Amino acid sequence: MPLRLFSVLLFFVGSTLLAQKSKPLINQGRLENRILELASYGLQENGETERVAFSDADIEARQWVMNTMVNLGLETHIDFAGNIVGTRKGKKDLKPISFGSHIDRVPNGGNYDGCVGSMAALEVVETLNENNIQTKHPLEVIIFSNEEGGVMGSRAISGHLSEKAFEVVNSTGYSMGEGIMRLGGDTTRIAEVKRDEGAMAAFLELHIEQGGILEQKGIDIGVVEGIVGLKWWDVEFTGFANHAGTTPMNARQDALLAAAKFIVAVNDITNSFEGRQVGTVGRIKAEPGAPNVIPGKVVTSLEIRDLSSEVIEEVFQAIKKKGEEIADASHVKIEFRPLDTTADPALTDPSIQEEIKKAAEKLGLSTNQMPSGAGHDAQDMATIAPTGMIFVPSKGGISHSPKEYTSPEDMAKGANVLLYTLLALDKTLK
Amino acid sequence: MPLRLFSVLLFFVGSTLLAQKSKPLINQGRLENRILELASYGLQENGETERVAFSDADIEARQWVMNTMVNLGLETHIDFAGNIVGTRKGKKDLKPISFGSHIDRVPNGGNYDGCVGSMAALEVVETLNENNIQTKHPLEVIIFSNEEGGVMGSRAISGHLSEKAFEVVNSTGYSMGEGIMRLGGDTTRIAEVKRDEGAMAAFLELHIEQGGILEQKGIDIGVVEGIVGLKWWDVEFTGFANHAGTTPMNARQDALLAAAKFIVAVNDITNSFEGRQVGTVGRIKAEPGAPNVIPGKVVTSLEIRDLSSEVIEEVFQAIKKKGEEIADASHVKIEFRPLDTTADPALTDPSIQEEIKKAAEKLGLSTNQMPSGAGHDAQDMATIAPTGMIFVPSKGGISHSPKEYTSPEDMAKGANVLLYTLLALDKTLK
Repeated sequence: MPLRLFSVLLFFVGSTLLAQKSKPLINQGRLENRILELASYGLQENGETERVAFSDADIEARQWVMNTMVNLGLETHIDFAGNIVGTRKGKKDLKPISFGSHIDRVPNGGNYDGCVGSMAALEVVETLNENNIQTKHPLEVIIFSNEEGGVMGSRAISGHLSEKAFEVVNSTGYSMGEGIMRLGGDTTRIAEVKRDEGAMAAFLELHIEQGGILEQKGIDIGVVEGIVGLKWWDVEFTGFANHAGTTPMNARQDALLAAAKFIVAVNDITNSFEGRQVGTVGRIKAEPGAPNVIPGKVVTSLEIRDLSSEVIEEVFQAIKKKGEEIADASHVKIEFRPLDTTADPALTDPSIQEEIKKAAEKLGLSTNQMPSGAGHDAQDMATIAPTGMIFVPSKGGISHSPKEYTSPEDMAKGANVLLYTLLALDKTLK
Repeated sequence: MPLRLFSVLLFFVGSTLLAQKSKPLINQGRLENRILELASYGLQENGETERVAFSDADIEARQWVMNTMVNLGLETHIDFAGNIVGTRKGKKDLKPISFGSHIDRVPNGGNYDGCVGSMAALEVVETLNENNIQTKHPLEVIIFSNEEGGVMGSRAISGHLSEKAFEVVNSTGYSMGEGIMRLGGDTTRIAEVKRDEGAMAAFLELHIEQGGILEQKGIDIGVVEGIVGLKWWDVEFTGFANHAGTTPMNARQDALLAAAKFIVAVNDITNSFEGRQVGTVGRIKAEPGAPNVIPGKVVTSLEIRDLSSEVIEEVFQAIKKKGEEIADASHVKIEFRPLDTTADPALTDPSIQEEIKKAAEKLGLSTNQMPSGAGHDAQDMATIAPTGMIFVPSKGGISHSPKEYTSPEDMAKGANVLLYTLLALDKTLK
């Protein structure tokens, strides 16, 4: 039998099977086109897109998303935190099942982070429309505002957005407070955006993995167990700046040498614990910073992430102890300053994890239980709603880069899992 | 006997002793006053002085120095490299004995580096004038231009100033080429400034130590054996920038972790050699430099100094070997890029060292043979003339800082040693 004929037969058999089970499926081409159309907002001359929250490109893309939502029949509005919220009526007077992601991007970022989950949410609605499916629960698509600049929109909904954050300026030059007003929100009414715990039946987010595990293992779908918490510190080493030529080796108080020993220790200690915690020093500044001057002051960052707050604290205490020993031996002072940027670990709902797994199985897709090392809107939503999160592979594990890529096939698989999970939850949830 | 009367008696006894030996002595108060007057050029509102080469303050201070030199009877001119050169006739038609230092300063520097040697040179001339001493050799006071920005003036005289250096811009915003013109030099005629080897009978420079050895040992005068050579490299580590949350510890190519191990190794290896060599990493830049991104690229400086070029090379090779091992083990690339900033070690003349020591002994001062860890104009002068260098203590070893300090007594001791060495050389040299 020629291969082509075999394929055609297989297609018919497949279609027949689906038809028999009357399974709706999302439209991969349509999803891909929306991803491409979204990427046109903020397109630069070099072929890459820039769309940081509050930029003109962000505002234009949001307008296009809202028009699309209205065209899909969603009752659409912008809340006071700048989130775009579109509601589809349910058969019953139940709490909504919410799902969505974000369309703002980091500077020099890619076309998939946030965008896949956002466009898949629209695609799920369009598929339900096409198949004349009305869920029991109302459905709510949320396109969160300014995820990359501090998960602003989801923090507002979960009640965790502090007014102090309004002063943070992003690369557009606008402060978060100014940005909220630009998006059509209202900083004076942020509190009204907060939803109580239990106000949603569930929250679902589809997202690219932003890591390389799924691709390496050849797995279709990541079932996210939770989003790791993170803590940040500034670590300051104070020695004594002196002339590199006239100060003998044994008379130095070299802050950079102490910091270097500390960076090695952060890696060793993080690895010495069992588990999947990560510890990172990503930023370093040495002063005065001249090749012929022994550095008198060095500030490094320290970040620790894990699914357990206790593990983060345990790793930190071990790093702190070792850091103090290094500083003492180096005749240098060390100071750990906790930074505001912290996020508590957020576990997803075990029964929703189970539904995602079952949905993938129904579609013939392989799954892998895994934590999310990156923060997401789902992290804050998990504090007020049973939450589930679906990952699709990132090529080469690359993210926050113009090289970020997820294939149309993989996006479609994820969107179908989102659709099936949603339909399953609609049946099981009250 | 009242203390005052005792002091007066002591003064007379001292004066008588000196008169008996007919030793001229420099005037400490006058030297101190000139140091203070020089510090008024570039005085800021905060009480500190800024006088980087080519600045208005530099030009005004140079004008004051030239006026002083003319008033002291020196035949004074600016050479094409901007050096101020003042000549005092000798009894015979011999090659000149030259001496001097610089009055330009590093940004945020002190009142003594270069200034002590410059003002002491003027004081020596005035003391000779007062004592009606005419030397056999012509004497030549040189106030070198732009020492801090690349030993510009002394390099021009020794023939080592490359035209490439003209493009270097200092903190005034002027390039060296522009600066030379501002000082009254002429970039098109730099070659005419060069002097042949042997064109001077000797060169002497008095300078503050810029280190803490003399003060710690309670020694009056440092007899400099040589000025250490130095080499600079940029060391680049190339790993792979990735998300700190989604990249497991064992999947990282962390350029900063490799650089940290390298910095520790630079210290260990430099210490593992016998001798007084120093190895320093003073500058570091990690990219992208965010707490939540594993650094993909790090560039550090590397500086090695020693009195022997062979030792510098030997230490460098050991560091390079270890750096490559670290890079391999860290899945990171390493590249050593030599920088233009190099200086060959310069040994001072052993017989001049001996004269400095004898001069100090005559004055009842203690001495210590030592290398200079810092670069000086004497370094280039040593390539064309028998050179001697005299150190006086720096309080706390601090230099290149507004806290830099050398007491008037210590400055006077150094100036007297300069005077006596000069007079001794005038007798012994042909």
